Amino acid sequence: MPTYRLDIEYLGTDWHGWQIQPSHPTIQGALETALQTALRKPVSITGSGRTDTGVHACGQVAHFQFDQPIDNQRLLASLRGLLPRSIAVRSILRVADGFHARFDARSRQYRYRLGSLPFAIDEAIRWYMRPAPDMDRMNEGARLLVGKQDFSSFCRTQSETENRICTVETAYWQAVPDKAGALDFVIRADRFLHGMVRAIVGTLVDVGQGKRSPESISKILAATNRVEAGFAAPPHGLMLEQVSYPSDSAAESNSLD
Amino acid sequence: MPTYRLDIEYLGTDWHGWQIQPSHPTIQGALETALQTALRKPVSITGSGRTDTGVHACGQVAHFQFDQPIDNQRLLASLRGLLPRSIAVRSILRVADGFHARFDARSRQYRYRLGSLPFAIDEAIRWYMRPAPDMDRMNEGARLLVGKQDFSSFCRTQSETENRICTVETAYWQAVPDKAGALDFVIRADRFLHGMVRAIVGTLVDVGQGKRSPESISKILAATNRVEAGFAAPPHGLMLEQVSYPSDSAAESNSLD
Repeated sequence: MPTYRLDIEYLGTDWHGWQIQPSHPTIQGALETALQTALRKPVSITGSGRTDTGVHACGQVAHFQFDQPIDNQRLLASLRGLLPRSIAVRSILRVADGFHARFDARSRQYRYRLGSLPFAIDEAIRWYMRPAPDMDRMNEGARLLVGKQDFSSFCRTQSETENRICTVETAYWQAVPDKAGALDFVIRADRFLHGMVRAIVGTLVDVGQGKRSPESISKILAATNRVEAGFAAPPHGLMLEQVSYPSDSAAESNSLD
Repeated sequence: MPTYRLDIEYLGTDWHGWQIQPSHPTIQGALETALQTALRKPVSITGSGRTDTGVHACGQVAHFQFDQPIDNQRLLASLRGLLPRSIAVRSILRVADGFHARFDARSRQYRYRLGSLPFAIDEAIRWYMRPAPDMDRMNEGARLLVGKQDFSSFCRTQSETENRICTVETAYWQAVPDKAGALDFVIRADRFLHGMVRAIVGTLVDVGQGKRSPESISKILAATNRVEAGFAAPPHGLMLEQVSYPSDSAAESNSLD
């Protein structure tokens, strides 16, 4: 059946995460309601993965199947009218039949924003903390996350996922240009476990504040036990930034039409 | 008397602009109230210039005089606790006695954000418009703004300013990396008249949508009459980004302490 890819941006502040829940407003739920109104038929969408309550995205990807022709530009405009301002569909693309936003994803990239001086413009998406953590120490620790490893120590204990092996391609902190006191953490992996990025950020902040050594990251990984890692950083600093697919080069050139 | 410089960031959405008004909440008013509480004495602050209702800033500068010693870091932390989340004092610096945020400013830089595809994260600070204006045409028009010229045609008619001569150093549109459909306008000048950037943006958008020619900008300037220019773009896309002073290189190295 004809398959469509949605590229989605959302401010997660007022939402109970991505995944549909019976009694709370969710991003997936809002999107399905808007699509059903615009297309006059029930539509089920599948995201690349869930995001937790309060987590944002500027590069979430989802797909749905629909058996009638769609005018992409018109649907984009309709959705802008139907959706609340905190959710935006950035592009709608007809993709190869059978494209699957979750199973076809090759990697995901998250960004965690942190700031040690007061800020206002990015208040909703940046975690304020004092004192400033030491970026060099955090980067020493972050380097030890790279590679194919068991991330059980950074996975929520309630998670039912059995396979806890993830391949982290890149993980580093960087100062934000022109924004004193602002630090961003970027991490990309083939897959992420439940609560993984926030547990990693909370633990690296411990390292940056001198409460743990950079080398402790290796010991925490080896323990495969959540209690060894630090607290979870708050959700509002986290953003799903990019999901990559084998077909991306083709898709991107289309979406800029 | 000892003089202090404040570097200030604010989301202008819920504020009636910078300047104190008797019956509406303003950014200057909120700052003076917070300073008075923290320092236990009335404090008057002077900004580099006003911003209108709904306009944001990430680089507003103000000064105040105070005759007792101030612990900058402690005051910064107190202000973060006292101010609403939409206003942040980013740094407090003791500067040369007699520093004046408005009279000493050498140039101001504004950024106007525009987007022709739906967005959510930057909804509060970016103007959504369809169809997308032609950036090359807008840049042809923008080039004609550069130089020392009479900007009466881009000044609110109620403004009482007699001198309408401004020297525009730079004015250009640029695509935002990694954000399809997003265009930013950057303009820097020694001074700006009331409503000037928004009138310029509204007029350049007319140019970008084919309703005016790029060359019409020169004719509009020559007319020195507000009715010749286009409508004012909405305030929420506008941000005061930077105010430059002769003393900046010294001040900046201090503020990163």
